[in-house]
Amino acid sequence: MAYGLARRELKPRVPLRHGEGDRSHLTSLEGLAALSLDALSSVAYGPEAIVLVLIVAGTGALTATLPVTLVIAALLAVLVVSYGQVIAVHPDGGGAYAVAKKDLGPRISLLAAASLVVDYVLTVTVSLAAGAASLASAFPSLTPYLLEICLIGLGLLTAVNLRGVAESARVLMLPTVLFVVSILGIVVLGLLRGHPLATVGTAQPVHATEALGLVLLLKAFSSGCSALTGVEAIANGVPAFREPRVKRAQRTELMLGGLLGLMLIGLAVLIQRDDVVPRGGVTVLAQLTAGSYGTGWAYYATNLIVTAVLLFAANTSFGGLPVLMSLLAKDHRLPHLFALRTERPVYRWGVVALALLAALLLIAVNADTHRMLPLFAIGVFIGFTISQTGLVRHWAKERPPGWLRRAVLNGFGAVLTSVACVVLLASKFIEGAWVVVLAIPLLMLLFARIQRYYAEVARELGLGEIPPPVRVTSDSLVIVPVGEVSKLAQHALTAARALGSAEVVAVAVHGNQERAQALKASWDTWNPGVRLDVVDSPRRSLVEPVVDYVQRAAAGGRQIVVLIPEVEPRHRRYQILQNQRGLLLAAALRARTDVVVCVVPYRLSI
Amino acid sequence: MAYGLARRELKPRVPLRHGEGDRSHLTSLEGLAALSLDALSSVAYGPEAIVLVLIVAGTGALTATLPVTLVIAALLAVLVVSYGQVIAVHPDGGGAYAVAKKDLGPRISLLAAASLVVDYVLTVTVSLAAGAASLASAFPSLTPYLLEICLIGLGLLTAVNLRGVAESARVLMLPTVLFVVSILGIVVLGLLRGHPLATVGTAQPVHATEALGLVLLLKAFSSGCSALTGVEAIANGVPAFREPRVKRAQRTELMLGGLLGLMLIGLAVLIQRDDVVPRGGVTVLAQLTAGSYGTGWAYYATNLIVTAVLLFAANTSFGGLPVLMSLLAKDHRLPHLFALRTERPVYRWGVVALALLAALLLIAVNADTHRMLPLFAIGVFIGFTISQTGLVRHWAKERPPGWLRRAVLNGFGAVLTSVACVVLLASKFIEGAWVVVLAIPLLMLLFARIQRYYAEVARELGLGEIPPPVRVTSDSLVIVPVGEVSKLAQHALTAARALGSAEVVAVAVHGNQERAQALKASWDTWNPGVRLDVVDSPRRSLVEPVVDYVQRAAAGGRQIVVLIPEVEPRHRRYQILQNQRGLLLAAALRARTDVVVCVVPYRLSI
Repeated sequence: MAYGLARRELKPRVPLRHGEGDRSHLTSLEGLAALSLDALSSVAYGPEAIVLVLIVAGTGALTATLPVTLVIAALLAVLVVSYGQVIAVHPDGGGAYAVAKKDLGPRISLLAAASLVVDYVLTVTVSLAAGAASLASAFPSLTPYLLEICLIGLGLLTAVNLRGVAESARVLMLPTVLFVVSILGIVVLGLLRGHPLATVGTAQPVHATEALGLVLLLKAFSSGCSALTGVEAIANGVPAFREPRVKRAQRTELMLGGLLGLMLIGLAVLIQRDDVVPRGGVTVLAQLTAGSYGTGWAYYATNLIVTAVLLFAANTSFGGLPVLMSLLAKDHRLPHLFALRTERPVYRWGVVALALLAALLLIAVNADTHRMLPLFAIGVFIGFTISQTGLVRHWAKERPPGWLRRAVLNGFGAVLTSVACVVLLASKFIEGAWVVVLAIPLLMLLFARIQRYYAEVARELGLGEIPPPVRVTSDSLVIVPVGEVSKLAQHALTAARALGSAEVVAVAVHGNQERAQALKASWDTWNPGVRLDVVDSPRRSLVEPVVDYVQRAAAGGRQIVVLIPEVEPRHRRYQILQNQRGLLLAAALRARTDVVVCVVPYRLSI
Repeated sequence: MAYGLARRELKPRVPLRHGEGDRSHLTSLEGLAALSLDALSSVAYGPEAIVLVLIVAGTGALTATLPVTLVIAALLAVLVVSYGQVIAVHPDGGGAYAVAKKDLGPRISLLAAASLVVDYVLTVTVSLAAGAASLASAFPSLTPYLLEICLIGLGLLTAVNLRGVAESARVLMLPTVLFVVSILGIVVLGLLRGHPLATVGTAQPVHATEALGLVLLLKAFSSGCSALTGVEAIANGVPAFREPRVKRAQRTELMLGGLLGLMLIGLAVLIQRDDVVPRGGVTVLAQLTAGSYGTGWAYYATNLIVTAVLLFAANTSFGGLPVLMSLLAKDHRLPHLFALRTERPVYRWGVVALALLAALLLIAVNADTHRMLPLFAIGVFIGFTISQTGLVRHWAKERPPGWLRRAVLNGFGAVLTSVACVVLLASKFIEGAWVVVLAIPLLMLLFARIQRYYAEVARELGLGEIPPPVRVTSDSLVIVPVGEVSKLAQHALTAARALGSAEVVAVAVHGNQERAQALKASWDTWNPGVRLDVVDSPRRSLVEPVVDYVQRAAAGGRQIVVLIPEVEPRHRRYQILQNQRGLLLAAALRARTDVVVCVVPYRLSI
């Protein structure tokens, strides 16, 4: 499912560094494992989505399953050919955001970015929900706990990604092969058997509440389109392939299209022949599995493989969204914070943000896959449309040999996906698509506002201009807050004198006169060559009087430097025992004055 | 209930400042409202605790209720007289911690502090649980939600205390009077009526599983002692009284003793006469209320008054614990953090810590008052014993006229409460007292370890010694990390030059050669008079290369000052968009180098 720009930087996850040679790049088959898992896993919920729509017109309406699936397969074929061209034009990876920024202008690129964010979140939630449903099909006692299973899975993914594991294409190879073999096995065995071997799940009453008309067929088509999510991932991941990478990527795209089409059509044939209707507690795929393999070990194994593959599919977002956020941050459309990718804690915020959004969504829809599919498909189809429209624009600009034929092909794809997008939006608006209609513009607005803020900052900082010359003055006053006469004070004053400034003054706060006198006396005994000012604090605050003192000093117009000594324990666990006053003082000075705040560390041996 | 040291500083909550005159101090009656609410409210669960113990020997065993209550009342009389002496000796407030520190040495004062912390938490939880039970007695539909009610009440108290309201004695006057009148009304009307007017709650089967022997009587006594929690509060709050404050405080203590004794004995007489047994869904006090007032509006009003008074009682801990923590911090037994009371955020941590501990405990015991009473009473009685033992030591040292008589009185009190403490511990060990036996030593250990740490720090800092003289050198090197040529860089370099140091150098990080060249070119055009070093960052980290650069520079032995320019947006909401890199750099430098880290603010107009 996941897609978009993110794939482009799959590289760092598939171990790949300069000088490591070509062995770390993907072959066509490895690419299928690394980049197509989320597309292939869509068969776990796509066909079911069609059945769930058609059933409202009664069991007879299920005869439309195969025709609807064939239309979707045709759309898949167009997409595969179209993305073959995307691969050739953007060998550096062509996610919707990058393509839109290059060929379609800032406004469309904001749309692409917003729909990508929505889709990364939905990739996680839909995959987890479908995975939980598959697990509960094998173990019916889990059925009441689908949400809990999803949240546990989400917690697992979050923990793994916070620790930052390197995911490798080779790890994904085995589940991918097992998954494809299992699904194709269901199709082949099912067709050979002639009738289902076993039935699972509890029968549910079917009430025909609507007639099978064009609207229902369009709804079924748009629901089934969720099976196409993820076909753009290979185009985004071209740089991860071994040379000749364009050839290999195109071959992988073709394999993906072939396998996905085969699985979708095969499953649809079985659904239609066996009159598969939704049954309680099991997925449609689980019913087909039982029909072909019976309810022995193969049934359990297949359901577990499906669950595992969906978990891996959910994981792709955790790799993708931080990358997208980093690109947006570099374009000043998200806090620059997210661009500092190599700084570990920052990367974590992206993971945490994704986990929180996914958890909220799962709770909101109670882990029901089919309530999320409308939201999911819309975002993906916006991406499809943008990528292909961008390519049409590209052909029209560059005009290489045969450009017209290519432009027509991509244009056809764009028209198909944009029509599908409109159909999805219209037919699913009330059922949840309105959320996307709300979320995407809000995200675009957010990106735009952030961008405007950074532009204003750049203007104020005079970026791109030559700034005024550096004034050379040296009338700084260095203020050192001290508590007692101690080595800490000595250390701080030594540091202050070493700055080379003309004047250093120490300031102490005391609530009662006796202690103030005692301090002055020991200061005089010590005689460090620096004046000590003791300020009174009737309300016993230690921070306020120093801030006031600094403000009064700053009123003179000199540059004020406040040098705060900080005790640094050797063990982190002692940190809570130290420096709180210094932190409070630094925060207050920063909020209320324009002075330079310096921290002088004093290391302890404990 | 709450007590201890904390009351001593009730002053800041009862509005009281220099020059405000005596009107802000408490009269005897106001003192009763401000300082006795938690003691008086104990009647809501004390008598019930006795009944709950005796009932295991069958309904016949309830005849022991009155005798047990009379023994408790006698103990109360001794405590009241004894605390009258505490008031005279410690007119500045004599909490267990302060008394122990003065007269009994550091070890006992740690014990006092630990038991006080335990009791502040239990004051909150017991009061809330009893309040919720009282509320559910009036509205039986709330019975399944006692824990939820407690947590909502706790949330309310936490929110109010985080905002920091000034609690005034006058606010408490009305509920106190209403409460005392209601309870005494129950007693008087009940005695006049001759038999209960109405019965509430559902009957529960009574199985006699034990014989009424000495052990059971001791258990009943120790459970009932929970009614005595809070009688020390007045002694702790002497400074809050109007002059002559010792006289007034002693008068208040006597009033409290009289009222509490009267209520306890009166309720016990009713319980015994009417054979009150525990009934489902209502408290014993609610049964007595219905017996005297019927089940009309007076029943609801009384239960609501009891709930309100218990909520106020819970609130006293929120005033008390932060004060105790601040005193412990001043004695280096808690992080100094907690001593910075006038700095608002610090005060909040104490409130949050109390709320979290109380919430955990409520959840652990599922808001069952009677599972917490053993823990509660033990802590309180440790405090009683320490206060009175301290006073014995005091009399023996000072030997004023009549000291022997006084010492004997306090000694008798100390023996009684220490025996009660042992009985409590022995009889309730398995039922939960073991938690206290675990928690108190662990807290003492924590305090002791923190104290040892601070002592070691003081040694390392040479506190109390005259430190070596301040060395005067001025070979600092000021390093200014810059991103681009901008007014920000200009501002930072100007600040660096103003320090008056001999040498300033700018350092920039760039991942690619082109941008490095471009930066160098515009630097040369600008020509700020400061050398620019551009360091390479193959892994695109912005922080690591600067830290490495600084470490190399520091290896030369010079004092290094890193001056980080920070953009300060005018609106706080933009803070997230700025300075993250600076914060990361500052944190990394602090963790891995000993350099002086300075922050130069650059204020934006947005």
